[in-house]
Amino acid sequence: MGQKPITFFRQVLALCSYPDLLEDSKFPEDAKSRARRILQACGGGSLGAYSTSQGIEIIRQDVARYIERRDGGIPCDPDNIYLSIGASDAIVTMLKLLVSGEGMSRTGVMISIPQYPLYSAALAELGAVQISYYLEEDNCWSLDINELRRALQEAKKHCSPRALCIINPGNPTGQVQSRQCIEDVIRFAATENLFLMSDEVYQDNVYADGCKFHSFKKVLFEMGPEYSEKVELASFHSTSKCYMGECGFRGGYMEVVNLDPEVKVQLTKLVSVRLCPPVPGQALLDVVVNPPQPDEPSYDTFIKERTETLATLAEKANMTQEILNQVPGIKCNPVQGAMYSFPRIHLPPKAILEAKVESACTQFNLISVLFMDISKGEKGQSPDMFYCMKLLEETGICLVPGSGFGQRDGTYHFRMTILPSKEKLKIVLAKIKEFHQHFTDQYS
Amino acid sequence: MGQKPITFFRQVLALCSYPDLLEDSKFPEDAKSRARRILQACGGGSLGAYSTSQGIEIIRQDVARYIERRDGGIPCDPDNIYLSIGASDAIVTMLKLLVSGEGMSRTGVMISIPQYPLYSAALAELGAVQISYYLEEDNCWSLDINELRRALQEAKKHCSPRALCIINPGNPTGQVQSRQCIEDVIRFAATENLFLMSDEVYQDNVYADGCKFHSFKKVLFEMGPEYSEKVELASFHSTSKCYMGECGFRGGYMEVVNLDPEVKVQLTKLVSVRLCPPVPGQALLDVVVNPPQPDEPSYDTFIKERTETLATLAEKANMTQEILNQVPGIKCNPVQGAMYSFPRIHLPPKAILEAKVESACTQFNLISVLFMDISKGEKGQSPDMFYCMKLLEETGICLVPGSGFGQRDGTYHFRMTILPSKEKLKIVLAKIKEFHQHFTDQYS
Repeated sequence: MGQKPITFFRQVLALCSYPDLLEDSKFPEDAKSRARRILQACGGGSLGAYSTSQGIEIIRQDVARYIERRDGGIPCDPDNIYLSIGASDAIVTMLKLLVSGEGMSRTGVMISIPQYPLYSAALAELGAVQISYYLEEDNCWSLDINELRRALQEAKKHCSPRALCIINPGNPTGQVQSRQCIEDVIRFAATENLFLMSDEVYQDNVYADGCKFHSFKKVLFEMGPEYSEKVELASFHSTSKCYMGECGFRGGYMEVVNLDPEVKVQLTKLVSVRLCPPVPGQALLDVVVNPPQPDEPSYDTFIKERTETLATLAEKANMTQEILNQVPGIKCNPVQGAMYSFPRIHLPPKAILEAKVESACTQFNLISVLFMDISKGEKGQSPDMFYCMKLLEETGICLVPGSGFGQRDGTYHFRMTILPSKEKLKIVLAKIKEFHQHFTDQYS
Repeated sequence: MGQKPITFFRQVLALCSYPDLLEDSKFPEDAKSRARRILQACGGGSLGAYSTSQGIEIIRQDVARYIERRDGGIPCDPDNIYLSIGASDAIVTMLKLLVSGEGMSRTGVMISIPQYPLYSAALAELGAVQISYYLEEDNCWSLDINELRRALQEAKKHCSPRALCIINPGNPTGQVQSRQCIEDVIRFAATENLFLMSDEVYQDNVYADGCKFHSFKKVLFEMGPEYSEKVELASFHSTSKCYMGECGFRGGYMEVVNLDPEVKVQLTKLVSVRLCPPVPGQALLDVVVNPPQPDEPSYDTFIKERTETLATLAEKANMTQEILNQVPGIKCNPVQGAMYSFPRIHLPPKAILEAKVESACTQFNLISVLFMDISKGEKGQSPDMFYCMKLLEETGICLVPGSGFGQRDGTYHFRMTILPSKEKLKIVLAKIKEFHQHFTDQYS
């Protein structure tokens, strides 16, 4: 998408990959000292050796110090840190550990709708019960405790709710949770004895005025021992988002809080099956949590690159919302954080019908399908998929339909990333605007 | 373990990590051209972008060409290649896809005993039925079709056998399967309608005279269409073993043959949950399957490094077997391939008793344990674990007891890697010899 990698990170990775470069005067001293420190902590001084399954110890220590700085000094034990293959790996691992039982006692896991499809896919794979709670679109995709309550009460009739997943800042919905809301969620989890899983991979991606990222860990500990000694929490972070955007390296970590020591033994056993997270990703994570300091030679460049990337993202978040809201029939909440807008689109009844007709006919098998093809070419798709396919055909722009993330019945959305360059994004938005008007006319 | 990385591989990785180095005259042209080619195939020309879930297309093409060269020209379709996070990830994914059913219809998977514990762990996690077939220790850990038959017949009484796993060259047992034996296995799989999973991560690690690596794919296709168009096969390879030894990068691939197209769709869906294999590991795999050619500047160094590593491993394989077989009470099969010896150890009855006493007592809970501790300090361990713990305490040498891999009742083994340097290995072997004699005296 054109987001430039941070120079310092890539220098350290090159030095770690090919340590002969440590003699090269072109590399700054701080990059060399980071690389030396990482290599010393690797088996045989090489990225090529397996690490322990939980991750390299000094990197877990660096992650713990990073979390302590982020959370205003609340202590973090490196033994509670598990390095992972991106955040997805840790999320799936944690879910694996939580899911059990059969029938009424089968584990239920609460996830937001709209959600990031990793959750529904992992729950389906594990045979867990998905408990959907809806975010409030009319209130900027915020989380309403009453909706959590409703979803939980209903779920208790047919499964055993055990965990509550939160994505903050939100994917695909881009909201940033208020501190008050996080407190409410923690109280709810404490009362209902739910394991909290907080997906915080967009923690540096906060753009809107008045919004601030609060980690669940920090709020939990500031609520006092009644909560901080009781509520079980796993939080997740990764090198793939924020100003880093290094998805390909598959670096990440999970912090667990209040995990029963015997369960922790099982967790360690479980992660050992995959031997270890990729060591280059671990090395990258180390420099992410331990970046250049003000007295180091790479500091100025690092700050400049990071600031530029985040400032551009903020600009694009704002631009996306502004332009989309100019289109009659599109309503877009502010993109407070993360990397996506998730606007609601009004689809004319005729378009909805045309999309659905074949869907209803699929039960009459191939003959109906052939008939449909011959007679009218209607598509058996959800209406927002139909819309996105038309957009793709007409403009070459690929958006993900809201039905891939879940949405309230009868509402339609798409997810659009704010990652393309400003120039490209402007063109894309103009084309979507034009397409939407044309589409509306065509089906009205 | 002191095995040096291949210079060319690390140069390409450094170039890919920090493409500014492409301007650096210190890097050879062939390393630069490989790096450029890989980067061009990456999203945005960067290792930091997600790849497709199946893996970068040109790398899958390179893997396919590698397999064709290895197998004497038998065609390989890049669409049948799935890049993975080391081999373990692909093995677990394939097992996931194969396992289903409940009770009598629950999927059974045949694995060799001794086995690499990834298999038993993955089967336990998936709730599959493990069907153990024993390798013939007296015949150099070879695979006997009659034993396969016995295990299968017995298993059919309580589950639905669906897959047969082979590790060749063997881990932990170091045997290399003969071509005849592979043919027999393929015929058996065809008759019994079993899905073949062949773990071939040690395919370059063959040391013994008269032994040669034959891929299951090659043998399958040479047996003619009766088999090559029918038997389902997944074979696995990785960047972690052989002369590369780059475990930390978690690179690997799986080739599937005769997989039902609809199942392939599900496989692609399944791997998409983990987004993509780490891109640095994919890049490394690309140079492993596409190393320097005779007319390229890095060729001589590459060949020298590879030959040295493999020759040293062969020497150490031989030395290990020779020295261990000099010890009365230790019997070691030739290490034909892979990276381990798995010698049988004779343990005096008194040692077996001492190891087991507490084991029998654990059912009487904590009080007995305390009593045992106070009275004699006996250990509740399998006898070979007891042996290995004693060795660790007395010498600092860490071996893995045979019970971790499975062994015939009443036999005891340990697994020992041949990876340490010749000098170190010699010292280790001398210490084991001394320890074994001392241990035998002590408990006789």
